[in-house]
Amino acid sequence: MNLILLFERDFVDAARTRARVEGRRARHVRKVLRAAPGDVLIVGLANGPVGEGRVRDLDRESVELEVTLRDEPPPPLDVVLVLAVPRPPVLRRTLAAATSLGVKRIELVNAERVEQSFLQSHAIDDDAIEEQLVLGLEQARDTGMPRVALHRRFGAFVSDTLPGLVEGRSARVADPRGEPAPVTPWPVPGLVAIGPEGGWVESELDDLRRAGLRAVALGDRAVRVETAVPLILGRYL
Amino acid sequence: MNLILLFERDFVDAARTRARVEGRRARHVRKVLRAAPGDVLIVGLANGPVGEGRVRDLDRESVELEVTLRDEPPPPLDVVLVLAVPRPPVLRRTLAAATSLGVKRIELVNAERVEQSFLQSHAIDDDAIEEQLVLGLEQARDTGMPRVALHRRFGAFVSDTLPGLVEGRSARVADPRGEPAPVTPWPVPGLVAIGPEGGWVESELDDLRRAGLRAVALGDRAVRVETAVPLILGRYL
Repeated sequence: MNLILLFERDFVDAARTRARVEGRRARHVRKVLRAAPGDVLIVGLANGPVGEGRVRDLDRESVELEVTLRDEPPPPLDVVLVLAVPRPPVLRRTLAAATSLGVKRIELVNAERVEQSFLQSHAIDDDAIEEQLVLGLEQARDTGMPRVALHRRFGAFVSDTLPGLVEGRSARVADPRGEPAPVTPWPVPGLVAIGPEGGWVESELDDLRRAGLRAVALGDRAVRVETAVPLILGRYL
Repeated sequence: MNLILLFERDFVDAARTRARVEGRRARHVRKVLRAAPGDVLIVGLANGPVGEGRVRDLDRESVELEVTLRDEPPPPLDVVLVLAVPRPPVLRRTLAAATSLGVKRIELVNAERVEQSFLQSHAIDDDAIEEQLVLGLEQARDTGMPRVALHRRFGAFVSDTLPGLVEGRSARVADPRGEPAPVTPWPVPGLVAIGPEGGWVESELDDLRRAGLRAVALGDRAVRVETAVPLILGRYL
């Protein structure tokens, strides 16, 4: 936690100068940062500016902060991440990682080789997703919550949603059958689609290509989704 | 598991044409691959060639394979990864990820901001490390076991071991204080050092620079070690 992310509900005054946090954030302030009254911590308002929080008071349950917000959060990475739903622990880590790298839009899609149990997992509940997004923002001292959408039907996603997303973006799909992609900067605004562990099936790859996504292969090794995501997003940094 | 990694001890004959596997690998063959007698699976010999294994027989405990080994494993990534010891779950995932990307030499080092409990963790036991290396090799259909060494004293590592590693390699250390590193291919043979979650302290960074490592910053966001490793190794692909 390199920044303590505050929400409107954390403020105790209308002017947003005093906030009280509890639970995980309070424990972090006490146990990891070992903060004492008077210490100044880095804070940010969700979808707002970043700044400082001076510890006014803290006890076992909560921390009260005097908050000054004035700086812009870091610029976003203008890349839409289309991700075939991975298994729950990988989904959690990948959401946090992509968020920490500045991605602001994540489209989770079903696909032929997505295990259907993944779509029933609690990891795709709104609360569970938000938890990971917050972790990613705190890591990168960012405040802009990504938008995450779940598309249970690949076909409908490709025909109804994808065209609007691709518009004005340099769009790619990672696939070993694609053209080799040497280490070059990928243009933004961008969109990149990353398939399930077993890869896209042929018809899905065809659909994505027809939607304007260029199929590119990064290296000749099959890697896990949680490895592929930072590796691929690194092309935009 | 995209390849079943075999060890000398798995072979039941001297000519290495028949192997019997048990435990995790046998369960994978039965439950994930749902293989039946006659099916042909991708196999590889640890530190040897890759090839095919025809299922001769399988029961609840074991799978017997008729093995033909003839192909080269994929080429290694000639990069030495110097990694400040991360917390155990991150270490596990990072070892597997780096191995899947073809790294063959990993130097785990202590550092000022490494929590000393990490160095007492079972995750740094030889068995636990080998487990993750095997997972990484199976993922990438590789067979060449990486060499992993642990250096409990940063100073001794820098003075005694690092000079020999840097020799003939383009060596870098990832650090936000370094020069910005745009997306360009990094030369191999390479060496890259990745610090602990809190970063290298100033004197460590100085030591690494004096040892010939160029400090480079990848983007302006602080990311987790498990995100940084694939992101940085991606510069070599």
